Amino acid sequence: METKNFSHHIELNNTVIDDGFWSNVQKTVTDKVIPYQYEALNDRIENAEKSYCVENFKKASEIVKRLKNGEKVPVYPADKWCYDENNCDENAFHGWVFQDSDAYKWLEAASYSLQRKYDSELYEKSCDLIDIICSAQMENGYLDTLYIINDRDKAFSNLRDFHELYCFGHLAEAGVAFYQATGNKRLLCAAMKFADLICEVFGENGNPGYGGHEIAELGMIKLYELTNDEKYLKAAQLFVDRRGTKPFYFDTERGVTTDGSGYKYNQAHLPVREQNEAVGHAVRGVYLYSAMADLARLAKDETLYEACVNIWESITQKKMYITGGIGSTVDGEAFSFNYDLPNDLAYCETCASIGLIFFARRMLEIKADAQIADTVERALYNTVLSGMNIDGDRFFYVNPLEVLPEASREDSRKRHIKTTRQKWFGCACCPPNLARLIGSLGEYCYTENDETFFVHQYIGSSVQTKFGHLEIKSQYTENGHVEISADCQRPFTLALRVPSWCDSCKISANAEIKEGYAHIEITEKCVITLGFELKPRLVKCSNLVRENTDKLALCYGPSVYCLEAVDNGDNLQLLKLDTKTDFEIDCNSPMKEIKARGYREQADDALYAQYSQAAKTPCTMTFIPYRLWSNRGETEMTVYFRYV
Amino acid sequence: METKNFSHHIELNNTVIDDGFWSNVQKTVTDKVIPYQYEALNDRIENAEKSYCVENFKKASEIVKRLKNGEKVPVYPADKWCYDENNCDENAFHGWVFQDSDAYKWLEAASYSLQRKYDSELYEKSCDLIDIICSAQMENGYLDTLYIINDRDKAFSNLRDFHELYCFGHLAEAGVAFYQATGNKRLLCAAMKFADLICEVFGENGNPGYGGHEIAELGMIKLYELTNDEKYLKAAQLFVDRRGTKPFYFDTERGVTTDGSGYKYNQAHLPVREQNEAVGHAVRGVYLYSAMADLARLAKDETLYEACVNIWESITQKKMYITGGIGSTVDGEAFSFNYDLPNDLAYCETCASIGLIFFARRMLEIKADAQIADTVERALYNTVLSGMNIDGDRFFYVNPLEVLPEASREDSRKRHIKTTRQKWFGCACCPPNLARLIGSLGEYCYTENDETFFVHQYIGSSVQTKFGHLEIKSQYTENGHVEISADCQRPFTLALRVPSWCDSCKISANAEIKEGYAHIEITEKCVITLGFELKPRLVKCSNLVRENTDKLALCYGPSVYCLEAVDNGDNLQLLKLDTKTDFEIDCNSPMKEIKARGYREQADDALYAQYSQAAKTPCTMTFIPYRLWSNRGETEMTVYFRYV
Repeated sequence: METKNFSHHIELNNTVIDDGFWSNVQKTVTDKVIPYQYEALNDRIENAEKSYCVENFKKASEIVKRLKNGEKVPVYPADKWCYDENNCDENAFHGWVFQDSDAYKWLEAASYSLQRKYDSELYEKSCDLIDIICSAQMENGYLDTLYIINDRDKAFSNLRDFHELYCFGHLAEAGVAFYQATGNKRLLCAAMKFADLICEVFGENGNPGYGGHEIAELGMIKLYELTNDEKYLKAAQLFVDRRGTKPFYFDTERGVTTDGSGYKYNQAHLPVREQNEAVGHAVRGVYLYSAMADLARLAKDETLYEACVNIWESITQKKMYITGGIGSTVDGEAFSFNYDLPNDLAYCETCASIGLIFFARRMLEIKADAQIADTVERALYNTVLSGMNIDGDRFFYVNPLEVLPEASREDSRKRHIKTTRQKWFGCACCPPNLARLIGSLGEYCYTENDETFFVHQYIGSSVQTKFGHLEIKSQYTENGHVEISADCQRPFTLALRVPSWCDSCKISANAEIKEGYAHIEITEKCVITLGFELKPRLVKCSNLVRENTDKLALCYGPSVYCLEAVDNGDNLQLLKLDTKTDFEIDCNSPMKEIKARGYREQADDALYAQYSQAAKTPCTMTFIPYRLWSNRGETEMTVYFRYV
Repeated sequence: METKNFSHHIELNNTVIDDGFWSNVQKTVTDKVIPYQYEALNDRIENAEKSYCVENFKKASEIVKRLKNGEKVPVYPADKWCYDENNCDENAFHGWVFQDSDAYKWLEAASYSLQRKYDSELYEKSCDLIDIICSAQMENGYLDTLYIINDRDKAFSNLRDFHELYCFGHLAEAGVAFYQATGNKRLLCAAMKFADLICEVFGENGNPGYGGHEIAELGMIKLYELTNDEKYLKAAQLFVDRRGTKPFYFDTERGVTTDGSGYKYNQAHLPVREQNEAVGHAVRGVYLYSAMADLARLAKDETLYEACVNIWESITQKKMYITGGIGSTVDGEAFSFNYDLPNDLAYCETCASIGLIFFARRMLEIKADAQIADTVERALYNTVLSGMNIDGDRFFYVNPLEVLPEASREDSRKRHIKTTRQKWFGCACCPPNLARLIGSLGEYCYTENDETFFVHQYIGSSVQTKFGHLEIKSQYTENGHVEISADCQRPFTLALRVPSWCDSCKISANAEIKEGYAHIEITEKCVITLGFELKPRLVKCSNLVRENTDKLALCYGPSVYCLEAVDNGDNLQLLKLDTKTDFEIDCNSPMKEIKARGYREQADDALYAQYSQAAKTPCTMTFIPYRLWSNRGETEMTVYFRYV
């Protein structure tokens, strides 16, 4: 682990994104997603599942007030929660245990939006919400509405299943983001106050626990990076180092003794340095792995980094869909075994791909390697964007690679496979997570160290670097053309990722390719142009994935494409692409279609018959980017198709 | 519905099976399965799930004795039962609610064995068990140990979920079988006494209920056919006719109002004459459909028959595996939607294929049609026989068409897919069901009416017919050769099924093919020889089944073949059959292998890569009959394979 390879991402206040593709997405997030989600947090979306998020903060605030007044306040069962008013006392906590985090994620997304463009209405809304949140914080700093409302004395008593450390992590991230965007410290102070309590309770000689759903680690690291206060770093390290050690904390917590295999779900079955395979709940996994990578870098911890590398390879070489989706199974929303990547049963939670991007950025900061940045691109342009409709008011939680509407209706094994995006989810982690990633996209495009500026993603922007100003004009998704202007206030190496999909790349300067990056020495003000040849590519999945033998996928630039029945008729499995086809590309159309020559097999009447070649007629096959699927109503869809 | 098409199966006492293939299977059932299952019913199999079956009868017998003595006896919760002594009072009922039926199915199987060959030890054992059963019968005829032990007053209070009518059905079948085999009326009398009570309780103006798990209907019909007492027929009709009518009995029973769609599981969502698709729990379905077919014939009920035809076509044209397995989904052990036949998630309960054979025989009795008899053959030689190992002491409940041991261990969606046969199941419907089917095989081979004798299955046997004696010598599975000697005491038509798989069939007499049967006029004593050409056949599944596109299956005679990793190496999906291959057949070897030429693709290193033809090396592919899979330890298996 060589520190000279380290590089650091560019802070958001040093990046302005101006990109034909992404600025629209960011605008949708600012104009549609953020206001819509604010309504959702406040339970004002008609016919959507209730969030109870703000309502819980208000209830908690009331409790805190009464506690301060020395009043006796009621106790509700805290060992179980109840989803809605029909199932429990109306004054008790409602919704999922992690509901607080939705407010924090919304505030984080709002912060990024405010950083891009100040908006007094959004700022006021944010401040109002922060007021409510802060008024719910207990005097000792504790802030989790489930326990504040239901039973203060039970705080930190079920770290495995309940999510106060998780909510804290999101609070810390939001506090840092809101402060960095606006200079307003109120939420940050609340986060630090809670962090201080956690550091005290879970300190070296204190409670040896850690969260069942990771992210407190990342929150602590963000606080450390902002404040340089070592206690936050130490807390993150303790949470990570304790994980999976014996006796298992989750055993101790409930007075049992197990072999720990049940804690694979929480990545707490083995000490983290002994983990070399991605297992368990995928979102939890990538949040932990992100923190491990941060800590490996901060502490120059070689063995921790080795575990990160092994886990990275486990994910990207054996457990990742072509769309950058991860988590093959609905049971536990989890990673499955190697090469188990069923298309029609996929889970591929939007949040998991977002977390994969978090992990990737941190791995890139340790060592720039184009395959890592390729993975960011894969997840970003496909699963992440599939998570939201064009209008920004409908969301996918699960992102399958094959959908048959009848199966989702009739087959209970596929009940998690929604055929159309939903307004909102009671468990609404994905939409605000998506909003905060899109909002902070600038953090994922570049890293720099003392000698080199790395461009990992070609997203039009202007960036303030150590070496002066960089202006990137990108038509990456449209025609592969990128222009980079550097004013070059001091000489540096510009390292430009060559996407693995690109066979032919023109660079207007001498470049040396290392680890998948074109390294160019920049000594004076200059303009570099890049031409990545975009052409439709037929991609095969490893034949160790049973589902995809004798099938192909179509990709174009960073985008995976798919077939929908609305363009191609039902029974997409009857279609076979002619691999000798030409492709007709219309990337200016709203659906960015690619048309190709293929055949449609005649449907067999007999369920079983003597083998014979099926009759087939020529047809045109129309592909659209996977991220745009299901924007035209419920329809059959598949990424993989047959071929001749 | 023309009654002249009707034919009737041959009673067991008129058939003696003597067949190179089946006599061994019957011997295994008599020598191994029946004694083994007796031990299981008595909880004497080490490390197997406990049955509690005999124990419950003994407890019930004790209760009945105390009731007769006017003693007060305890009450346990009857609205729920508990599996074992760890979860409830040791004196309460244990095991599944339908546990009594295992004793009845065992007695039915024992009866068939006694009919084949008297064995005093087995007869004694049977009589002992019948003693215990009869001593558990209440004075009014009621006989279900769950309610007798737990709470007499709650009898018939939960017809949807609890199985007293189901247990009665099996009791009636066993009573008839034991009487027919031995002349001993004791069990039959107990069954009739219970039947009389049921007729009284559920009579025309009585309780309008019907069983949640069908089979009482078939039991009543068997009693009717034996006794000619119309009240039993009437009871069966009431049960069938009431099913799915409004108000839904299962609603009334629990004081709710639903749209009935939840009762698809029980085939009680619609009146039976409006049902045209096989839905819900597959075993329940085929038991109901069998009774419907019986009643359609007995009452010459055209609309009921139409429903049977529609349902038959629904199953065999859209919902049946190539192995004759039915029930694609573990959720509800149920039929799925049309063409949803996943290989690796299949349920294919052994009992469901047995029930399909029951349904088929009754459809054949209404109208002989070779495709129906073909389906019997398909189920019998493949899924049914797959249900038992060669030694007769291990059983499959679920019969998948593709197994990856790692998936069964790691993927909770596939937990029902056992990779090796089990000793016994707590819910042990399949092993005794298999024993009773194999024992009564003679009932499924032939039907006759006043003019015609139909041979549906070519199983070596001697049969006493209306037209004299028939001697069938069969090498059907070995070389396709069959010889039928008729002494012809009066002229008749011999109708011989031509299996749909057979392209070339030599018949030593003039024959006219009608509905798939070769009709031969027999006027004098003669010997007819048949030669069905056996050759390996490559069979394709309809391309409307998404899982099997670009794959084939190999069949030989009535047998579906499969590949196992123990012969072919792991990763069976890498193998591709050369469709121009010759086949090398060794049907005398224990595993009856067929060898063919194919290729093994090199495993891809990269998870995703530019499309190119995979490198492949020639190899020999070794197939074994599906029924024999997993007789050599845990190993990967697949029925469908790729090809070039």
